[in-house]
Amino acid sequence: MKLWLFFLSFFFFFIVISTKTPISSHPLDPLSAEELVLVQKIVKKSYPSKSHNITFQYVGLDDPEKPLVLSWLSNPKNNPPRRALVVARSNKETHEIIVDLSKRTIFSDQVYEGPGFPLITYEEQMASILLPLKYTPFIESMKKRGINVSEVVCSTFTKGWFGENKGKRVLKLLAFQIDNTVNLFMRPIEGIEILVDLDEMKIAEYSDKFTLPVAKSEGTDYRFTAQKPPLGPHIGGAAVMQPDGQGFKIDGHTIRWVNWEFHLALDVRVGPVISLASIYDPEKKKYRSVLYRGHVSELFVPYMDPSKDYYYRSFFDCGEFGFGQSAASLIPNADCPSNAVFMDGYYAGKDGTPVKVSNAFCIFERHAGEVMWRHTESGIPGVTVNEARPDVSLVARMVATIGNYDHVVDWEFKPSGSIKVQVGLTGILEVKGTTYTHVDQIKEEAHGSLLAENTIGVYHDHFLSFYLDLDVDGVDNSFEKKGLLMKPVTDGSTPRKSYWTVVSETAKTESEAKMQLGQKPYELVIVNPNKKTKAGNKYGYRIIPGATLHSLLLENDYPQIRGAFSENNIWVTPHNKSEKWAGGRYVDQSQGQDTLAAWTLRNREIENKDIVLWYVMAFHHVPCQEDFPLMPTLTGGFELRPTNFFESNPVLKVVTG
Amino acid sequence: MKLWLFFLSFFFFFIVISTKTPISSHPLDPLSAEELVLVQKIVKKSYPSKSHNITFQYVGLDDPEKPLVLSWLSNPKNNPPRRALVVARSNKETHEIIVDLSKRTIFSDQVYEGPGFPLITYEEQMASILLPLKYTPFIESMKKRGINVSEVVCSTFTKGWFGENKGKRVLKLLAFQIDNTVNLFMRPIEGIEILVDLDEMKIAEYSDKFTLPVAKSEGTDYRFTAQKPPLGPHIGGAAVMQPDGQGFKIDGHTIRWVNWEFHLALDVRVGPVISLASIYDPEKKKYRSVLYRGHVSELFVPYMDPSKDYYYRSFFDCGEFGFGQSAASLIPNADCPSNAVFMDGYYAGKDGTPVKVSNAFCIFERHAGEVMWRHTESGIPGVTVNEARPDVSLVARMVATIGNYDHVVDWEFKPSGSIKVQVGLTGILEVKGTTYTHVDQIKEEAHGSLLAENTIGVYHDHFLSFYLDLDVDGVDNSFEKKGLLMKPVTDGSTPRKSYWTVVSETAKTESEAKMQLGQKPYELVIVNPNKKTKAGNKYGYRIIPGATLHSLLLENDYPQIRGAFSENNIWVTPHNKSEKWAGGRYVDQSQGQDTLAAWTLRNREIENKDIVLWYVMAFHHVPCQEDFPLMPTLTGGFELRPTNFFESNPVLKVVTG
Repeated sequence: MKLWLFFLSFFFFFIVISTKTPISSHPLDPLSAEELVLVQKIVKKSYPSKSHNITFQYVGLDDPEKPLVLSWLSNPKNNPPRRALVVARSNKETHEIIVDLSKRTIFSDQVYEGPGFPLITYEEQMASILLPLKYTPFIESMKKRGINVSEVVCSTFTKGWFGENKGKRVLKLLAFQIDNTVNLFMRPIEGIEILVDLDEMKIAEYSDKFTLPVAKSEGTDYRFTAQKPPLGPHIGGAAVMQPDGQGFKIDGHTIRWVNWEFHLALDVRVGPVISLASIYDPEKKKYRSVLYRGHVSELFVPYMDPSKDYYYRSFFDCGEFGFGQSAASLIPNADCPSNAVFMDGYYAGKDGTPVKVSNAFCIFERHAGEVMWRHTESGIPGVTVNEARPDVSLVARMVATIGNYDHVVDWEFKPSGSIKVQVGLTGILEVKGTTYTHVDQIKEEAHGSLLAENTIGVYHDHFLSFYLDLDVDGVDNSFEKKGLLMKPVTDGSTPRKSYWTVVSETAKTESEAKMQLGQKPYELVIVNPNKKTKAGNKYGYRIIPGATLHSLLLENDYPQIRGAFSENNIWVTPHNKSEKWAGGRYVDQSQGQDTLAAWTLRNREIENKDIVLWYVMAFHHVPCQEDFPLMPTLTGGFELRPTNFFESNPVLKVVTG
Repeated sequence: MKLWLFFLSFFFFFIVISTKTPISSHPLDPLSAEELVLVQKIVKKSYPSKSHNITFQYVGLDDPEKPLVLSWLSNPKNNPPRRALVVARSNKETHEIIVDLSKRTIFSDQVYEGPGFPLITYEEQMASILLPLKYTPFIESMKKRGINVSEVVCSTFTKGWFGENKGKRVLKLLAFQIDNTVNLFMRPIEGIEILVDLDEMKIAEYSDKFTLPVAKSEGTDYRFTAQKPPLGPHIGGAAVMQPDGQGFKIDGHTIRWVNWEFHLALDVRVGPVISLASIYDPEKKKYRSVLYRGHVSELFVPYMDPSKDYYYRSFFDCGEFGFGQSAASLIPNADCPSNAVFMDGYYAGKDGTPVKVSNAFCIFERHAGEVMWRHTESGIPGVTVNEARPDVSLVARMVATIGNYDHVVDWEFKPSGSIKVQVGLTGILEVKGTTYTHVDQIKEEAHGSLLAENTIGVYHDHFLSFYLDLDVDGVDNSFEKKGLLMKPVTDGSTPRKSYWTVVSETAKTESEAKMQLGQKPYELVIVNPNKKTKAGNKYGYRIIPGATLHSLLLENDYPQIRGAFSENNIWVTPHNKSEKWAGGRYVDQSQGQDTLAAWTLRNREIENKDIVLWYVMAFHHVPCQEDFPLMPTLTGGFELRPTNFFESNPVLKVVTG
């Protein structure tokens, strides 16, 4: 049962608060455990427990304005004010509180009255799933089905929004049977709907509508200890030996490796946040900025069963459940290779007390056997040249497990200047119960694949929006759409009848930047129009997309209104501190007024400005039997690659150990 | 100068021929050095040197028919006849000779009179590039430019076809200056056109039309020994230690690893050929076939400068120059990681003598730090489950260096059943000379990017056609296009307004299978319609494409007629022994009659038949300064992934060392 892991992951810190609590010296550092305690203390002073039942739904760094951070970068004495953003619930109201950590005061406090609700805390989820087990109608429903309540566990599902006015802060629960397995998600107990009022923490609605067979437990448990022979396949282990030692240094949250420097922080909502990534240019003898900030902005997962018992299932994993809050404690030699170094993370629990996530990140040099560059020259008589350089990269990894799904998020830095982002989807599918045991029995639309007896893996999508505030060697950048356009040769000047050329267009406004990819070929480059190479090319970084998929839902369908960022693969906005989360700030029961799609309706100017690139990585998921009872990792990704950023190949003179 | 490598790579074997030459026992083994000598002997007996100036343009295994191979698989006594296909030139004619190795006789001999010419041998290329250096007009051209002929090297370029009738077997040469650098390709001497008659091995046409400055040599040499300080970046080395030892066994050309078994052969034309890949199914207690045969079929590289001096540059790297013939000798710890095992390869040289390529392949277990699967369960009160399995794969790698470009071809096998194919493009760009030294000087279409002074990297494409003869648990398969189709909800039965579902269509004929990807979402599955899982799903393997690009050229443009396979990403044909090469058998100066596009005009039936999937992996290449003077690797790939092939996750019970 690995109970020690449970305690390790959710070990609560009790720290004596002192007015001397040290403040982090790096303006982008996540709030430390001590700082979280300080925030808790300051907020609770204004909201004493006796009169207020205040809960901390989100506590994170209130980002200092970019000019202040850049000023600090050039002179560390210019430390911007250190502030925390607290989103709290008190008396069924949502408060946005800015806490000034330096002055130990509340800087501002506003009640948010718009649609939607904040992040649901882990404690709220855990408290709510216990409610049915002592709720008489539920106990009777189980009895009716012949299921022992001690073998039942509930899980949390957000309710979504389908046109209604703002109501209560509620959560749906579904029940699962766990006799002989820990794989609850493969064993839904169908027909029961439970609505929990989160502010009251009580069951608000309950109904038992129908029954379906619960799929058998056999073969669903994935723990190694639960496997029966024959085991296998057997794979050998491996250790990465680095005779030259570990190649990177971690200084607080700043990581330096080969020619890269970047800052890594855990945010309770979006998980890993990369900041101030810059690369050393030996020709210019300095670090040059590439990515001011990059992180997953939102993950929208709409399911494709529209029927009355399933229609609501569309999740926003960052804004509803929190990638950082759901960070798994990474397992050495399994989640990360033998040469990985681990970092813990902290977030504020429901009452503001810091929660430690052990091994929230791992950082490792990835020696994957790839070739950085090579060439064999056999065309010079009498001479053979055979030169090759092995590639290596630095990976910062976090895993966010949102209920059933595990998301392995990798930020990979290459000496050649590329940043690759890779997301691996694994964990467990969301399935629904059915009477079907064979495909031949299915006569009407099942909205999924029959994976095993009584088990349908429901069709769904994953749309990950990435926030990419590229600062290509400076703050002011432009977005160039370089279309590859076929030109016919009609003048008979040569035997060729066609060719393609590059037609560049600088997106002047947000609407000019919106793109569904896959239709026509483009090179998509964020350039610095103010800085050029000696040959006159604008410094640039291009994005090489992976799968170019986008949402298939109707634009006016409720989940799509809320997850409208999934309509395009590419969006560009002017940098705006309040626009970090593509699904909006209050995503739970959101109504779509505060999304990337809504912001960009203003059609702001984006040429030669501090701009943010939003990229949507997408998966359409048609489950298959290999995904049962647990999915082998499926991976997607994209690459940010220097394009006329350097004068020439920056790894030509690489020296390998 | 690493002369030892030169000798190592092109070490000619002189083997005493005996009538006892052993014949390979595996029917798909490539021809051994001994067998190549036997072929040479048998052919030369019919074509004595005195009367025939016979040259061996292609020597390879004449594939036994699939039923014979499958019969051998079930009983090794059923050894099919072992035959070689020889394409020879004799008296300016192309001969297709089938040699029976068992009977030591010529089985058949036909003169090919159609359009196009066979593979150009390495020796022909090397002989032709020496011709200008002793050719007076060329020497004078160099003198006129003030270039010392001793500092000049020529390189070979195929002529293509632009509507003319079949003419002579010729090759174009271009000149490059190599003082102070081995990077000839960055230093074209423009204005000179040389045409070599390959059968006569003499210069047939020569013209000196204009001069342009030759780009400077500074900064172009990529050899480590040529680099000047400051060197860097510095990256640490790494060794993969495998405490359980090497996980794979090589038995002749058969490789067995974890749950995979496959055969790896070198073909002079297409490079690595994977055959009989099958995976062990512990539930069925047997190996089940996945891929009968897979290899690069052709690589079409059209350049996008249509002007009169460049228009012809469109290459077919497999059929013109030979991927296997151009295999680089892989460098330990640079081209392949420390735990790699190397295999040599052999092909027949121009006179039929075997040529050894040392380290033509490397095979290694790839421990890249990926996660095979994982799940953290924190939703069961009092219990935390945290399970993860590290991923590992087996990679078979070859590098084909065709002139300037190096192609790193990886076949990667995963315990989960996936086969990933990855191609890395590195090496050197094809550039053209120019007077431009700055982008601002460019007033008209340059057909490329200014990379450095006097150097334009010409726009071009890479279209790799992969031949994928999947035999999904049996020979007869079908191709299912599973369209993801949006359905509106109009009956008001639920608050949802839309969803998507899967609409499957089995391609009945070749034309129904042709697809340009990227427009609409599909799951593309090769299924065995005759075999189903217990739940009733057809066994399948799906292809997950990478970038879904296709040719932008006009259909009637000459290069496009020849490389017409680049029009679609997906093609499916019935298995036909003579259809292996998507650009046709005789690609040099081909006229497009014998291509995948032409074959499929017959629109044959492909349902529940032995079918071949052809996938086109594409890159549009807009060069950038980072590609100068040598390109950091750019990678593309695709995945073949089991989809209802197994009853459940085949790596659930994996045991890791």
